[in-house]
Amino acid sequence: MDKLELLRHAVITVLKEIHGYSNSRKQEHIFSELILDKEGDHYLCLDVGWEGKKYIYDPFIHIDIRDNKIWIQRNFTDFEVEQRLTDLGVTKEDIVLGLHSPFMRQFSGYGVA
Amino acid sequence: MDKLELLRHAVITVLKEIHGYSNSRKQEHIFSELILDKEGDHYLCLDVGWEGKKYIYDPFIHIDIRDNKIWIQRNFTDFEVEQRLTDLGVTKEDIVLGLHSPFMRQFSGYGVA
Repeated sequence: MDKLELLRHAVITVLKEIHGYSNSRKQEHIFSELILDKEGDHYLCLDVGWEGKKYIYDPFIHIDIRDNKIWIQRNFTDFEVEQRLTDLGVTKEDIVLGLHSPFMRQFSGYGVA
Repeated sequence: MDKLELLRHAVITVLKEIHGYSNSRKQEHIFSELILDKEGDHYLCLDVGWEGKKYIYDPFIHIDIRDNKIWIQRNFTDFEVEQRLTDLGVTKEDIVLGLHSPFMRQFSGYGVA
């Protein structure tokens, strides 16, 4: 498996795990979406719809692959995504915490852009 | 072109137009993403990254195709998306305004689920 394939496999595995878990709390007017754009390398989970009279739009995890690195752009879950990715063979240097500011990333122990 | 192909073509055309426009205001640490998940039929544009010390996460348009209908889940742009879709051959009955509550949709002049 070449590097890009390894990164994609790891990201898709983690997203499917998270989606499978979150999708267990279904509601009639909420779509629980697993979005896998394999051409653009954008991967996310979100809930969208209506809970009674309240409009819900909640992209709770978003990961990109860019220049052979995994960018964690958003993670509002309790899943330890970085840990799970490294368990799946991704090195810490290949994970960029997009959630951290460009300046702070050098201190994160993970990759930089 | 069968119906699903027509819907996909219309949605992708509109998203590319919107992305091309929004992408013209580029910034160093902002990714301006056009997300096209053609298998799951989820289509969105979003900006993610850092503007100085501020974290930006802005999915400004999101359209799904589900059961042969176009669902406009979110539109924070000035584009008249419904009008553009009908110009491209989509009927109003095949557009569901997910942004409107399930109850209010029957009064929208557009489709219902």
